Amino acid sequence: MGARHGIRGILDNRFINLGDQPAEVLNVLGNTPGAALGSTREKPDKRTCKRLVRNLQAEGVEAFFYIGGNDTSATLNGMAQAAKGAENPPLFVHVPKTIDNDLVKNDHTPGYPSAALYVASAFAGLNYDQKSLPGIHIAVVMGRHAGFLTAAAAAFRRLEDDGPHLVLVPELRLDTKIMLARIKVCVEKYGRCLIAVSEGIRDQNGDLLADGDYLDPHGNVQLSGSGALADKLAAMVQRELGVKRVRGDTLGYMQRSFLGCVSAVDKKEAREIGQFAFTHAMGKQENFSAIIERIGNRSRFATAGLADIGGKTRYLPKDFFDENAMQPSQSCLKWLAPLLGDPPELLDLT
Amino acid sequence: MGARHGIRGILDNRFINLGDQPAEVLNVLGNTPGAALGSTREKPDKRTCKRLVRNLQAEGVEAFFYIGGNDTSATLNGMAQAAKGAENPPLFVHVPKTIDNDLVKNDHTPGYPSAALYVASAFAGLNYDQKSLPGIHIAVVMGRHAGFLTAAAAAFRRLEDDGPHLVLVPELRLDTKIMLARIKVCVEKYGRCLIAVSEGIRDQNGDLLADGDYLDPHGNVQLSGSGALADKLAAMVQRELGVKRVRGDTLGYMQRSFLGCVSAVDKKEAREIGQFAFTHAMGKQENFSAIIERIGNRSRFATAGLADIGGKTRYLPKDFFDENAMQPSQSCLKWLAPLLGDPPELLDLT
Repeated sequence: MGARHGIRGILDNRFINLGDQPAEVLNVLGNTPGAALGSTREKPDKRTCKRLVRNLQAEGVEAFFYIGGNDTSATLNGMAQAAKGAENPPLFVHVPKTIDNDLVKNDHTPGYPSAALYVASAFAGLNYDQKSLPGIHIAVVMGRHAGFLTAAAAAFRRLEDDGPHLVLVPELRLDTKIMLARIKVCVEKYGRCLIAVSEGIRDQNGDLLADGDYLDPHGNVQLSGSGALADKLAAMVQRELGVKRVRGDTLGYMQRSFLGCVSAVDKKEAREIGQFAFTHAMGKQENFSAIIERIGNRSRFATAGLADIGGKTRYLPKDFFDENAMQPSQSCLKWLAPLLGDPPELLDLT
Repeated sequence: MGARHGIRGILDNRFINLGDQPAEVLNVLGNTPGAALGSTREKPDKRTCKRLVRNLQAEGVEAFFYIGGNDTSATLNGMAQAAKGAENPPLFVHVPKTIDNDLVKNDHTPGYPSAALYVASAFAGLNYDQKSLPGIHIAVVMGRHAGFLTAAAAAFRRLEDDGPHLVLVPELRLDTKIMLARIKVCVEKYGRCLIAVSEGIRDQNGDLLADGDYLDPHGNVQLSGSGALADKLAAMVQRELGVKRVRGDTLGYMQRSFLGCVSAVDKKEAREIGQFAFTHAMGKQENFSAIIERIGNRSRFATAGLADIGGKTRYLPKDFFDENAMQPSQSCLKWLAPLLGDPPELLDLT
């Protein structure tokens, strides 16, 4: 049984019998962007958590699997708290899925490899576009707190002069003066500069560079779904460096939904971790979060405590980013490579 | 022999011997985004045209093949005029390539099918993303004058409630009041609205909706490389309809450069029309433009006079757009289908 739009469906009694769906349908759903059951942005309070638990019990639910990232695991945590002392509460199981890759305890999370492949492919294309027609190009990547997606912008760099020439992640406290100086040097050296910048980029005071005049239902400043940050940075570069041809792009919602851009590893693991979570839940009493660990280049599924994941944020490890070069480190790119699959064959005229 | 960055390379004597490149390299180049020889945005005046012709003659060039769209063919036209009366002038051959698909006499142009595939795939993804998390989403597509690329946003619609629900092409003189009313009805009906809008969209006075405070070297208002239009429209919808969750995306330079998003038909034709132009040029005296015609679902190469193409713009044919539905017509989608290849298999839970 699946709930439409997560906890919203549990509150509204909108369920769907997933057992009725033929295997063929589920296979095609695996290639269809978006969450087939629907998503939600609601953060339930304590009272709502209690209601959610009651509704699940009324439906005779023995185990509740909730798929998502930070907010999802926090919701699940709240529900688990609300269920304490209840008679025969359901088992609460978190199944990870977030393109941000910012769940602690996980090596990587389903959704991230495919979104990272989009970002890597976009920047490989922007790099060659810029080789054809030089200029300064700033492209904004998703990731409010963690720089994993933005780091993927550099995954397909091959030559020393390949872009992105600067990769600006949210973990970096950006000194815009240094950024401008680096852009200037890059343009002098290569005649062009391609910059990958995270939507969550912060200045030296820790303040978001993006202006937020609108809060989402979680009380967060809206970052995605607007081109404002790219335009602001492009205008800054135009003004401060006196360069005319500066372009700003925002990779936008295509990063998480572009049809056909799917990492083979991601597709396989996304299905397998669901099966793992289901199998592992059989006969268990203790709530858990399924996680992905890595042994060498191979993934392994394991479990962690719900409370160890919920509401916590994993940042880009220190050794994954070279602050001086303003680039992801070699160990970051080495970590990323098996998630993206074979690198593309690209060439320049010599 | 190839000139780096088009006429800029001819002026600066920057040539490269393409005959030296092994077939293998040329094959990989066929998969590499961007123009391997480089591009330019320069529009030569009469005097520069004369200099270009002299430089070509000095290099012993017998035929000059220039690959590109409207501005390219206009440049070639100018060079052909400048060569009139010269002794043994080179043959001037235009080889079409523009993602805008706005060259007259052509059924379609190399570059367009792949960019259209990107746009169709992006909107198929945005549609499913929005099914998961409903709202209003406005996404801006390239195309200053012609709506061919924007029309491709609707190529993978299957169900009646699939987005994009509105497709706004530059040929339409947009009444924003009608647009807002349509969005309102759509949200009432489907709980969401996905809108594809061309960067070149104009109001009823024929003025661009995009604010242009910067002109490119051709004296055109800069449309691409900024998220301003999407943000402006999103703010308008937020304000006028009182809806909070409105997102604006700009598909940006990924449309013409995204790695791996290549239409098989496009890849084949792009190579073949070059071969056709070369073969056809042998022993010819009269300048020409290679064109793509269509017989049923099959493409056929032919030639047209240079002056018949240069500087002219092909618009979306009247019967390709249903103004009332604000959607490309069935004949447009039928025309588009073979250029994109097999449609993706997508499914919804029922």
